[in-house]
Amino acid sequence: MSAETPAETPASPPAPSTPLTYEQSGVVYDLIDPLKVAAQRAAASTAPLLGAHGFGEVAASRGESAYVVDVGPFYLASIVECLGSKALVADEMQRLTGRSFYAGIAQDTIAMAVNDLITVGATPLVVQAYWAAGGSDWFGDAARAQALVDGWKRACEVCGVAWGGGETPALAGIVEAGRIDLAASCTGLVNPKTRLTLGDRLAEGDAIVLLASSGIHANGLSLARKLVERLPQGYLTPLADGSTYGEALLAPTVLYSPVTEALAKDGIVPHYAANITGHGWRKLLRHPGTFTYRITDVPPVPQVLRFIQQQAQQDDEEAYGTLNMGAGFALYVSAEDAERTVKLARDCGVPAWVAGSVEVGPKRLIVEPLNLTWDADALQLR
Amino acid sequence: MSAETPAETPASPPAPSTPLTYEQSGVVYDLIDPLKVAAQRAAASTAPLLGAHGFGEVAASRGESAYVVDVGPFYLASIVECLGSKALVADEMQRLTGRSFYAGIAQDTIAMAVNDLITVGATPLVVQAYWAAGGSDWFGDAARAQALVDGWKRACEVCGVAWGGGETPALAGIVEAGRIDLAASCTGLVNPKTRLTLGDRLAEGDAIVLLASSGIHANGLSLARKLVERLPQGYLTPLADGSTYGEALLAPTVLYSPVTEALAKDGIVPHYAANITGHGWRKLLRHPGTFTYRITDVPPVPQVLRFIQQQAQQDDEEAYGTLNMGAGFALYVSAEDAERTVKLARDCGVPAWVAGSVEVGPKRLIVEPLNLTWDADALQLR
Repeated sequence: MSAETPAETPASPPAPSTPLTYEQSGVVYDLIDPLKVAAQRAAASTAPLLGAHGFGEVAASRGESAYVVDVGPFYLASIVECLGSKALVADEMQRLTGRSFYAGIAQDTIAMAVNDLITVGATPLVVQAYWAAGGSDWFGDAARAQALVDGWKRACEVCGVAWGGGETPALAGIVEAGRIDLAASCTGLVNPKTRLTLGDRLAEGDAIVLLASSGIHANGLSLARKLVERLPQGYLTPLADGSTYGEALLAPTVLYSPVTEALAKDGIVPHYAANITGHGWRKLLRHPGTFTYRITDVPPVPQVLRFIQQQAQQDDEEAYGTLNMGAGFALYVSAEDAERTVKLARDCGVPAWVAGSVEVGPKRLIVEPLNLTWDADALQLR
Repeated sequence: MSAETPAETPASPPAPSTPLTYEQSGVVYDLIDPLKVAAQRAAASTAPLLGAHGFGEVAASRGESAYVVDVGPFYLASIVECLGSKALVADEMQRLTGRSFYAGIAQDTIAMAVNDLITVGATPLVVQAYWAAGGSDWFGDAARAQALVDGWKRACEVCGVAWGGGETPALAGIVEAGRIDLAASCTGLVNPKTRLTLGDRLAEGDAIVLLASSGIHANGLSLARKLVERLPQGYLTPLADGSTYGEALLAPTVLYSPVTEALAKDGIVPHYAANITGHGWRKLLRHPGTFTYRITDVPPVPQVLRFIQQQAQQDDEEAYGTLNMGAGFALYVSAEDAERTVKLARDCGVPAWVAGSVEVGPKRLIVEPLNLTWDADALQLR
């Protein structure tokens, strides 16, 4: 659960000569985005239906990482999230090493859901498992299946959530033979309601605290997998610390809910929170308001991310705009709470840094040490 | 949303000579079940974690269709459910007819989640969409994507749930090219808590009210698809009413939450409820207690199910033990509430029948008109 120290000396082999962008890795947002917009509009139109039950949505949660409903004594938050293609790395590494990495990707899957749910101030309570295999025979590898169960359980324990149940369909013809589509749904409560962190309290002078990632987490894997084609030793390419590229990619995503729960226990309510997943550091622009975010300290970059940046010939703008580069989660807190936030995170085993602050100004992210700037149009989620 | 009348005269072609069982259709439960058992045990062990939040699970919901947590003023229920292979039928029918059936299978997907969630007495409040495509290009078929959005929205409207959001990953390498893995998560509240229907009130003399299905719903599709290989005209085989086999298979699953909400409004709290999905009528044995369930009236069988039974050469035991055969949902209510339950369901547009009653006796399901009996070991879900 701790961030790797940066590897400033690149591991072998030397970087190839042509850069690799995220679009080249196969995900074409132009095709997906029209559907997303249509779905978001249709979804938003259903909100008034809650009125018949005496409840109402918290409209500000539309476009945020979890959906929030006001049910009276507290807010109800829910989400479903997908692991993505990290399972393919686990499969290939099992083929190469004989070891199962499914305990780790179980944690990744839960992290995808839990780390999004907590951004609204919710305590995650129940996780449901969605494990859709490409056929009944997927479950015949008992050691792999047990690793998945064990890792899932352990991640629930770390987050203090009950594993409610789930669905384990065999979907031959939809999921590819030998593969599994892993997802998790998570339900939680914002309780007391004052813990809601949809951003209305964000203000000039607030501190930006970054929490360490453990590596690539579960975003950017399409790029990371594409890169393997350029590496003569593929996933077994050694990194500077002796681990292989494949092992380093499979470091499980940090679960951040112990940190947000520790803050709540200590009376700290963040003014906003952002899970740094797809779009990398551009997620720091997620808050709907107009602020300038100035980052003055940049956390150490996990070795595997520096390796990807070098091998893909990405400049810092491309790398930080795509990958987490060492910061997996951002907490925007009162300046006076900043150091205590860092301490509480570290007490949970998660390195953290007061990395910057919120300023009055145009919507903009400035990463001073890297001389990078992104404007409002760098992140279009709504 | 209404059940088809039975087609006692078989549609062409004549039934083939060899029977087709469910196991032959490719789903091998022996491979999946050990994982399921391990997962259920691990999941159950996480329940005490809720104590740290001041909450606790409702233990009787383990093994039921939705997971229930006592959060004080009400119970919280949650679930994730998969459509299964019905999308493959929609894909093939689109190829054959040029029409998109994705509005219908959107409803099916939501029905899988909502119809399970309501068995515990919960009002469904929020649905999340999980649409995992085999690549970005799936979303390039704008008409199909729009049908999915429209059908999803409409099903939410029928159920009075808010569509909270969801996940639309492009999972090339995990989901097959050109395919989509559809699932839904649903969160709801049992409110007031007296609406909880986990079965502790089930008693001798209670009536069993069956609610009509619209056809195969979303269980048994592997069998139905396998059968196509035996039909010279495949999915375009005409049934007696002029519809094709493919169209009939794609009749959307009935959404039963309007019925359970109407009952609640009218002051009727069922003593138990069972969603009749996989394992067909054996699901009537789902209650954990020891009772004999005597069915004295059998609802009309939708034409498409009778066709499947005939073509697959299934006897009634196999057919009713696998498919819903016209009964998509069962409500166990006080005898005095039985007729009113039927009326309320019909007012919602769902045909319903007082089909039988609960008796003291060994755990057993007796379907008198068909001379069928299943004992306790016919359904092993816990």
